[in-house]
Amino acid sequence: MSFNSFGNLLKVTTYGESHGTAIGGVIDGFPAGLKVNFEAIQEELDRRKPGQSKIVTQRKEPDTVEFLSGIFDGITTGTSIGFIIRNTNQKSKDYNHNTNVYRPSHADYTYDKKYGIRDYRGGGRSSARETANWVVAGALAKQLISSININAFTSSVGDIFIDKPYQDLDFSKTESNIVRCPDATSAEKMIDKIKEIRKVGDTIGGTITCVAQNVPVGLGEPIFNKLHAALGKAMLSINAVKGFEFGSGFCGAKMKGSEHNDVFNEDGSTQSNLSGGIQGGISNGMDIYFRVAFKPVATIMSAQQTINSDFEVTEITGKGRHDPCVVPRAVPIIEAMTALVLADFWLLNKSRKV
Amino acid sequence: MSFNSFGNLLKVTTYGESHGTAIGGVIDGFPAGLKVNFEAIQEELDRRKPGQSKIVTQRKEPDTVEFLSGIFDGITTGTSIGFIIRNTNQKSKDYNHNTNVYRPSHADYTYDKKYGIRDYRGGGRSSARETANWVVAGALAKQLISSININAFTSSVGDIFIDKPYQDLDFSKTESNIVRCPDATSAEKMIDKIKEIRKVGDTIGGTITCVAQNVPVGLGEPIFNKLHAALGKAMLSINAVKGFEFGSGFCGAKMKGSEHNDVFNEDGSTQSNLSGGIQGGISNGMDIYFRVAFKPVATIMSAQQTINSDFEVTEITGKGRHDPCVVPRAVPIIEAMTALVLADFWLLNKSRKV
Amino acid sequence: MSFNSFGNLLKVTTYGESHGTAIGGVIDGFPAGLKVNFEAIQEELDRRKPGQSKIVTQRKEPDTVEFLSGIFDGITTGTSIGFIIRNTNQKSKDYNHNTNVYRPSHADYTYDKKYGIRDYRGGGRSSARETANWVVAGALAKQLISSININAFTSSVGDIFIDKPYQDLDFSKTESNIVRCPDATSAEKMIDKIKEIRKVGDTIGGTITCVAQNVPVGLGEPIFNKLHAALGKAMLSINAVKGFEFGSGFCGAKMKGSEHNDVFNEDGSTQSNLSGGIQGGISNGMDIYFRVAFKPVATIMSAQQTINSDFEVTEITGKGRHDPCVVPRAVPIIEAMTALVLADFWLLNKSRKV
Amino acid sequence: MSFNSFGNLLKVTTYGESHGTAIGGVIDGFPAGLKVNFEAIQEELDRRKPGQSKIVTQRKEPDTVEFLSGIFDGITTGTSIGFIIRNTNQKSKDYNHNTNVYRPSHADYTYDKKYGIRDYRGGGRSSARETANWVVAGALAKQLISSININAFTSSVGDIFIDKPYQDLDFSKTESNIVRCPDATSAEKMIDKIKEIRKVGDTIGGTITCVAQNVPVGLGEPIFNKLHAALGKAMLSINAVKGFEFGSGFCGAKMKGSEHNDVFNEDGSTQSNLSGGIQGGISNGMDIYFRVAFKPVATIMSAQQTINSDFEVTEITGKGRHDPCVVPRAVPIIEAMTALVLADFWLLNKSRKV
Repeated sequence: MSFNSFGNLLKVTTYGESHGTAIGGVIDGFPAGLKVNFEAIQEELDRRKPGQSKIVTQRKEPDTVEFLSGIFDGITTGTSIGFIIRNTNQKSKDYNHNTNVYRPSHADYTYDKKYGIRDYRGGGRSSARETANWVVAGALAKQLISSININAFTSSVGDIFIDKPYQDLDFSKTESNIVRCPDATSAEKMIDKIKEIRKVGDTIGGTITCVAQNVPVGLGEPIFNKLHAALGKAMLSINAVKGFEFGSGFCGAKMKGSEHNDVFNEDGSTQSNLSGGIQGGISNGMDIYFRVAFKPVATIMSAQQTINSDFEVTEITGKGRHDPCVVPRAVPIIEAMTALVLADFWLLNKSRKV
Repeated sequence: MSFNSFGNLLKVTTYGESHGTAIGGVIDGFPAGLKVNFEAIQEELDRRKPGQSKIVTQRKEPDTVEFLSGIFDGITTGTSIGFIIRNTNQKSKDYNHNTNVYRPSHADYTYDKKYGIRDYRGGGRSSARETANWVVAGALAKQLISSININAFTSSVGDIFIDKPYQDLDFSKTESNIVRCPDATSAEKMIDKIKEIRKVGDTIGGTITCVAQNVPVGLGEPIFNKLHAALGKAMLSINAVKGFEFGSGFCGAKMKGSEHNDVFNEDGSTQSNLSGGIQGGISNGMDIYFRVAFKPVATIMSAQQTINSDFEVTEITGKGRHDPCVVPRAVPIIEAMTALVLADFWLLNKSRKV
Repeated sequence: MSFNSFGNLLKVTTYGESHGTAIGGVIDGFPAGLKVNFEAIQEELDRRKPGQSKIVTQRKEPDTVEFLSGIFDGITTGTSIGFIIRNTNQKSKDYNHNTNVYRPSHADYTYDKKYGIRDYRGGGRSSARETANWVVAGALAKQLISSININAFTSSVGDIFIDKPYQDLDFSKTESNIVRCPDATSAEKMIDKIKEIRKVGDTIGGTITCVAQNVPVGLGEPIFNKLHAALGKAMLSINAVKGFEFGSGFCGAKMKGSEHNDVFNEDGSTQSNLSGGIQGGISNGMDIYFRVAFKPVATIMSAQQTINSDFEVTEITGKGRHDPCVVPRAVPIIEAMTALVLADFWLLNKSRKV
Repeated sequence: MSFNSFGNLLKVTTYGESHGTAIGGVIDGFPAGLKVNFEAIQEELDRRKPGQSKIVTQRKEPDTVEFLSGIFDGITTGTSIGFIIRNTNQKSKDYNHNTNVYRPSHADYTYDKKYGIRDYRGGGRSSARETANWVVAGALAKQLISSININAFTSSVGDIFIDKPYQDLDFSKTESNIVRCPDATSAEKMIDKIKEIRKVGDTIGGTITCVAQNVPVGLGEPIFNKLHAALGKAMLSINAVKGFEFGSGFCGAKMKGSEHNDVFNEDGSTQSNLSGGIQGGISNGMDIYFRVAFKPVATIMSAQQTINSDFEVTEITGKGRHDPCVVPRAVPIIEAMTALVLADFWLLNKSRKV
């Protein structure tokens, strides 16, 4: 239990370093009887993979997943699902200069202090490569709760924000541009921004908004596993995330009760939805929506002062192929984690009444 | 496992409805050999209790905790620590009008749909009364990790914000005013704001900032139990919380890598601390700081349209004694949850090297 | 997590020392909507309580359970169920002579070495008094899975064994004698044996057999939570238990495959049942039966050599009121633990198919 | 959480079907800094593998483990350790006749009823092939707690028992014969017995005794994770196990307290050791010993009546290559599971005192 597992009834356990032999995992508790759509899983991996467009890292990794167990004749059997993604692009020499240098705002220093040893190649276990495992598991979860629609999208890059509520967006447009923003005008500006930042060897932060629709009433456990707390923890597990808010979020902290309360309609729906689809930690059937903040990628292409493991001052300049902005590739990761959380609660909910 | 437990090696399991016989819990995994300061625990409960000042609910509840086990001659024995807080102020008649009416933006509707039954008296299990249990456990955890300093304070009420960085505040002043804001000027404005809001029967949101200092390097599990993810989940478990950010938070999402990176000093500390004391999910020895958003209390004293359990439209007006702003009483809750998270990681960390 | 919890979806967490203020616990994950039969719970406690007959300890403890939460108008609400049993018979003076003496074959020495401190009064947490908590939880679990019949009974005391297969016994006779043996002839001999042993200040071991009938097919998780492994762990958690076998048990280790295999009937039942109702860790619908071995109670009324906490040789003679044989009072404990295991798997099973 | 995980701080999660692509797992919580002896791991796998001698199945499977993560330059890093064992001997045609036939005393029927689907090739997930995963993890655990000596051996086959106490055996002789019995005379008889049984197409049960020496005082959690309860659950998780006893075991149930108590020596050791090295669920520093009963292998080479999935009566005769007696190959499995249990408690124990 050093917490390489996520979930409760639907539990994903992962392993793998960025430049090791392979990454992979075990999906435990997946119910029997689902006909698996393997293409859909690979499509999600392709949305996350490096090299997919000009505004992401130009590393080429096919990220092909191989399922090893738990699926028989294309149908889940209820036993644990093992899977593996071989690492094919292990140009460790790009990273040799980091052997004993602590990159600023990375995990190098803390891993070293915690464990006394670290795999320094490409960030090792702390690399966002790990999230490919999550996308595999999340893609399967999506198929389990296929009646729920989960749509994430880039809502800001730097100081460029979509200036519309999500209800005015057409989620089918998210994949129509490389920044994954369903608003075409904002998308163009965001792409320009990222290109410009990359040109100067710098990086930029951004936010992603996620909307889950058609969620059944009753998901979530009301005290220490509130639906929004589980979602928040999932999102804060993603590399580079600095904040999470749902419903009215931080804006809600400025409001009055008389403005904030969601008045009920006769069918149990609410007129407004500042609650973000969750009341008392439990889904109420309205849209669940939340927003996630990503810091700028820490690896930049200009020289920075730092120290090495002997506590000597030195200098580092990013090499290799890195993302100028993490947000476009993080969209499928957020959807995957959302699917895992909702599927877990969906299974848990089956045991809640006599 | 309907998640009335919090923590891993240090695990707190709770029970209790607002207007039932008692609330309480079991603290499991607390190490043997700690001399317990019972007064300090009661003081924390007193900081949370109703009726403590003019800007909080005027209910009178002594919130006296009785320890039932796990402590012998004042010293923890390593066995589970049971405790109980009897409910003494059970004026259920205040709440009788809610028997079958769903209060807007409360948990009434979702509990009813999830379980098919609910204890409607004072919110039952969804009441923030539950957090008294957390304060008991957190106060014990504070004593376990007494070298770490945890200070939370009210950083905003409505649109009144402290306009200073936390480094310029004197945490010893937090308890010097009833809104628990260490900045005297802001405190006065906040108190006025709450009084004004209460006068019109309305409520208001706010934020709390928490700073943990002198945290050892190495706390946090790097994949699915990152230190900030665990803190985030803990905070999002608190009633009325809508958002969580740490370090640069949502502001970080607007920044560039060259601005955001924390450059190392020769001793391993960093010149800036936008990371918020956590890198790769693991504490790096710098101050940990985060901010939590609270929505306005949903119970207001003016009439609102709503529905009842027969899905008929009706009207509800808050009665009884409620908080106009939850933030002042939430300060000790946030400290308690922070202490529980850090103590858990502190115990976990003992097993991380051969 | 020092493992004062039992179960997974239905999770019981307990606390309490033999001579502390109270014992009690929290039952988490109990589904909403069950009308609780409180009398049935107290009856189970009465079957376990001291002083109930001439062959058990003569301590008088009413063992009255008070439910504190999770039940509203007599119906479970799905929230955690807190309960407490006050300790009324705390004659600590009976135990004062044990302050720093390690009683042979008790937990005194190991608790002291593990924790550096122990509550020496009446065994503290290591006392079988703890099992009253289990009986409360198990009695509730029994009501949840009321279609399953669970019958435990004394199958041997010392070298006196029932010489019939359990199929020839009438379980309704179990409570008709104080040793809880449904075979009247054996019961009489067992009672005589225990009286004789008590007279000389000695104690005696025994075995209990438990039969669960009408168990649905499919309970049990096939790898690391096999139904028999969970039952085995539950039984081995009971004080004084030294062994567990199910189905053919240790006798099966002497048999040949051609003798041991259970041939199927056309309806899926089997002609023999050496499997003990479990195949591959999963219930097959046949009777589940198993046998549990209890050592003799370690407290005897004659002088024994021992050491104290300063590692000096000393002598100890049992005082106070102790059971000459633990088996009669352990029958309801075994039923309770069996009910908890089966109810947990019954809940888990709801999530196993799409 | 369908329980493909074992352990707490040291947690092993596995996957894999007998005739799927591969088996494997993830070892989580293994501390950083151990120099891994890979040869020793492969040696343990070789002790378990098929085809190693004339009295086990003649299948040929190399069982080569590949480590995928968590080990860098031969040293554990504290991150999760992924490993995989490719299935190379997938002669599924041997098993085609079992497509829809339920083999007596196997898991076919119960898996089908529980999940509605099963991988029928070679038993799928219910195959003992899974235990190769456990041996990998256990071999690593052995290296973590290398000061503890764990020795299992065949103590009986059918009605042939070693007639000496374990203290009179030389464990270094265990590997000197193919039945893994350290007593040469008994070993010869056991081997003859198994050969004879195999000749007639039948199978035979047996028992294994395991002794753990030099275990530190204090391992074990005293209520629901007693050391012997955890060992019992581990052993009952092994395929074909029907019973577990430790210390005096079932014999203890016939004894008197005056005979059974272990009198202390001045150094805290005990004169006798009927407690089996565990008191109150916690190790006391004496030898831990226990005995495990295995039923005869259910696949026999003679015709048996059975049913198919349409509930029609049919006949089945074992084909393929099966063990006539499971015991010789189970010896390293028992040692592996014992090592996993002890290593887990060893890690847990680090958090028990302030």
